[in-house]
Amino acid sequence: MSNQNGNNATKVYLKGKHGIRVPARKISLTNGEDPVYVYDTSGPQGGDVRNGLSPLREPWIRARGDVEDIAPTYVPQPGAPEIPERKTVLRGTGNVTQMHYARRGEITPEMEFIAIRENVDPEFVRSEVARGRAIIPANINHPESEPMIIGRNFLVKVNSNIGNSVVTSSIEEEVEKMQWSTKWGADTVMDLSTGKDIHETREWIIRNSPVPIGTVPIYQALEKVGGIAEDLTFDIFMDTIIEQAEQGVDYFTVHAGVLLRYVPLTAKRVTGIVSRGGSIMAKWCLAHHQESFLYTRFRDLCEVMKQYDISFSLGDGLRPGAIADANDEAQFAELQTQGELTKIAWEYDVQVMNEGPGHIPMHLIKENVDKQMEWCHEAPFYTLGPLTTDIAPGYDHITSAIGAAMIGWYGTAMLCYVTPKEHLGLPNKQDVKDGLIAYKIAAHAADLAKGHKGAQDWDDALSKARFEFRWEDQFNLSLDPDTARAYHDETLPAQGAKIAHFCSMCGPNFCSMKITQDVRAYAEEKGIESAEALEIGMAEKAQEFKEKGSEIYQTAD
Amino acid sequence: MSNQNGNNATKVYLKGKHGIRVPARKISLTNGEDPVYVYDTSGPQGGDVRNGLSPLREPWIRARGDVEDIAPTYVPQPGAPEIPERKTVLRGTGNVTQMHYARRGEITPEMEFIAIRENVDPEFVRSEVARGRAIIPANINHPESEPMIIGRNFLVKVNSNIGNSVVTSSIEEEVEKMQWSTKWGADTVMDLSTGKDIHETREWIIRNSPVPIGTVPIYQALEKVGGIAEDLTFDIFMDTIIEQAEQGVDYFTVHAGVLLRYVPLTAKRVTGIVSRGGSIMAKWCLAHHQESFLYTRFRDLCEVMKQYDISFSLGDGLRPGAIADANDEAQFAELQTQGELTKIAWEYDVQVMNEGPGHIPMHLIKENVDKQMEWCHEAPFYTLGPLTTDIAPGYDHITSAIGAAMIGWYGTAMLCYVTPKEHLGLPNKQDVKDGLIAYKIAAHAADLAKGHKGAQDWDDALSKARFEFRWEDQFNLSLDPDTARAYHDETLPAQGAKIAHFCSMCGPNFCSMKITQDVRAYAEEKGIESAEALEIGMAEKAQEFKEKGSEIYQTAD
Repeated sequence: MSNQNGNNATKVYLKGKHGIRVPARKISLTNGEDPVYVYDTSGPQGGDVRNGLSPLREPWIRARGDVEDIAPTYVPQPGAPEIPERKTVLRGTGNVTQMHYARRGEITPEMEFIAIRENVDPEFVRSEVARGRAIIPANINHPESEPMIIGRNFLVKVNSNIGNSVVTSSIEEEVEKMQWSTKWGADTVMDLSTGKDIHETREWIIRNSPVPIGTVPIYQALEKVGGIAEDLTFDIFMDTIIEQAEQGVDYFTVHAGVLLRYVPLTAKRVTGIVSRGGSIMAKWCLAHHQESFLYTRFRDLCEVMKQYDISFSLGDGLRPGAIADANDEAQFAELQTQGELTKIAWEYDVQVMNEGPGHIPMHLIKENVDKQMEWCHEAPFYTLGPLTTDIAPGYDHITSAIGAAMIGWYGTAMLCYVTPKEHLGLPNKQDVKDGLIAYKIAAHAADLAKGHKGAQDWDDALSKARFEFRWEDQFNLSLDPDTARAYHDETLPAQGAKIAHFCSMCGPNFCSMKITQDVRAYAEEKGIESAEALEIGMAEKAQEFKEKGSEIYQTAD
Repeated sequence: MSNQNGNNATKVYLKGKHGIRVPARKISLTNGEDPVYVYDTSGPQGGDVRNGLSPLREPWIRARGDVEDIAPTYVPQPGAPEIPERKTVLRGTGNVTQMHYARRGEITPEMEFIAIRENVDPEFVRSEVARGRAIIPANINHPESEPMIIGRNFLVKVNSNIGNSVVTSSIEEEVEKMQWSTKWGADTVMDLSTGKDIHETREWIIRNSPVPIGTVPIYQALEKVGGIAEDLTFDIFMDTIIEQAEQGVDYFTVHAGVLLRYVPLTAKRVTGIVSRGGSIMAKWCLAHHQESFLYTRFRDLCEVMKQYDISFSLGDGLRPGAIADANDEAQFAELQTQGELTKIAWEYDVQVMNEGPGHIPMHLIKENVDKQMEWCHEAPFYTLGPLTTDIAPGYDHITSAIGAAMIGWYGTAMLCYVTPKEHLGLPNKQDVKDGLIAYKIAAHAADLAKGHKGAQDWDDALSKARFEFRWEDQFNLSLDPDTARAYHDETLPAQGAKIAHFCSMCGPNFCSMKITQDVRAYAEEKGIESAEALEIGMAEKAQEFKEKGSEIYQTAD
């Protein structure tokens, strides 16, 4: 939930213990109305990207006394672009995960920060993390991040994907896309960059990101073996995750649930395997006649993750890619394995969420959440959409916002956005924004449906502004004030219209809201009860409508 | 469900009894795939609007021998724009409703037409209409319309609203908006025109409309009394509905459920009464200290409706206009009265649907359908959205497509669209299209979730085309082929890319669909089982990926 634009909206900081300053967006209103405070993901703004963000969590991390400074493993390639110099990076001397602290009964500053941000008790944050029902993705090497939590008893979160490519590949552009994403409300950002300068691009993104960064390490590992899946080894994968761990990646998508025996289950599907990571691992399994190293060496991965506090995002490599393939045997077989792996990670106090589909018709959505909760022991669910039909390429932000809102209501903790370009091409900046707005709508609709404390205050403030014809307040309270204002001005551009008690939809002479409102004002003036007031008021007000009948009606009635 | 653009798509006619020719859109595919036939609302195209459409139903209507030719009641105003001359119009000598015939056991040509269009048995159409669970809006004075049905056991339908205004008010523009609506899949169109030339605008729209036309007669009646609600009388209203009945309006929104005692129930709402018709009637009730003539003289209305076969769309004048007001006492009180009126209309064999909200958070949507089904005896439900949050003005086609898809799945028969301009201004042509696409998605997602026979065939055809990299087929099968093609071409514009076995999202060297597909082809070639094939195939295919690792990854994984 964020509103980043708009006039009358400023960033403020809510203060807590340990010098904690929690960002929020304060939207000031007219007419004596109380300001509305909304969750803000945009991070510190206006700084020089070459300096990165301030490492706000560093003192908290060091104060725990369980980290050591080590020399970075990664050696820059000759000729590679410059990156911010970091002589040392951090590594835990023991277990440094938020889950570990939570299970020890400690409320960390990160949890205090989140408690203020989510307007809940710090102890509740701790208990949910200890239970594994929520995660705080917070690599000790990404101290710039503003703590946030992913779990179904908190606000529903939204992820956006960015990543360089052979088509558009400057580092500056990727940093800008990350900032653009957080401006429009992304709670986490996945960097899916590949190819040239992958390490350097990621470094600049992380150093400037106020939100947790996720990656799919197998992509970079695959680059290291020249794109040949069968040549992947555990050692190469391990080198990659350590490289990324030292940079500060907060969560890793790992497709450890793709087992050899599940691959043939996809053979009769309409669209087979549609996950890149899933297809890489399927190929490896078949080529080697054995389970993947992600599965067999999963405990070794946990040993590394706990030293940096990197969360697992257990990938759904066999997710359905078409309505026809929804909720099939392959998909649910992998989900059960995700559950098995979740329990193993928890043995190491490593935080875990589970990725979910994909393409699912509405009536099959709930089963996904129910099974995930049961089989994965209530670990947070993180889904891509789901798309509720396949017939609208070019509009998959809408086909999937429907599914995303529903799955969020049913209990999914984070929604991975889909842009209008899905299935067709690379999203540009406008697509990123369109995808994010659609997903902020879905997430907020889910918060409302879940009865999340305080979620409806925002809606009520906007509805009240609408009813009272406070146009500027209405624009400023919108998810996208610029667009709301521009649409209004298309038909009623004059400044006067923004204080007018009508809009172009029904025109000045006839507006249902105006009638109700006039009558209420009358009641107040006369100090009478509303039913009676309506009656008396109506008789008087009737005179006001003796104007010629050239109104504009555009809404259904 | 319609696909009106696209190359390789042509209108065809499926033949039935009585010389019936049912329009459908045939989308031809490449690679030996069977063509896909989809429901088509666009009507005969390319004719001269001055001639209107051919009156295809006229012989069926006259053959029933229960109508008479009468002189039109309406006398053109001096100086009004010209309209197509009709020396006589039709009126039933008795009851001419489709429900009346259905209850007598007759399967009309209209029902035969619909049976082909919906791919069901004609007797099933008849029985649903007889039961009141479905309606066929089909005024005998609108013989140009192609019969369609609204009921929860048929495809979910979509309505678009048009109407002139002081801002844009040429008759030609309104006819064009109606045609534009049916091109993008509107199943019915409501003409909410007011002001100047209201009669003439409606005449041109009806004469050229292949889909049923709905209106809100109280708007025109209000014009006749200079905009003063209290001055409305039953006689003026009756004159208005007869004028419109003779023109051929297929359904009337009538806010007969707004009772005097319900009005005070809206006093404490955040947004009061938001329906124009509702506020007019509330005002009338209070001013006169009595129930409205719409309610007290409802049986007189039925007597007229049955002579033309006009369906009631019982308005929800007290629908909520904000999340805060959802499912409140005022709303449900009126719904109970809608149920009472539904039963009365059925005594006259007059067809009825019930209008519903509005603004409803997801968890309160189902209650609306459940109560409507129970209280209104399963008459078709026709809802506006509902919007699932109020915080996104400028994107209410999305906030409401979420609610529309869900309420459609739960059993709503027709969805009234919402455009991005809702609450802000008048929709332009692009807004009408955006609203319709969002609602066609919602309706189709609902059809899929209801398990409607044949609905998934379209998705499966598109998914298969996607998997097989048949790009042109994928575009042509899209709800909006132009946009799908344009988005694809933004990053891979060359003609060669449209036959390429990859897209710009993952690049040519690494594509999960390509892997699965290559392996299956290999299996077929070698005549081996899929699991084994995958294994052997993978080893060989590995060579193909020894290319440099500059792939483009953009989807989450």
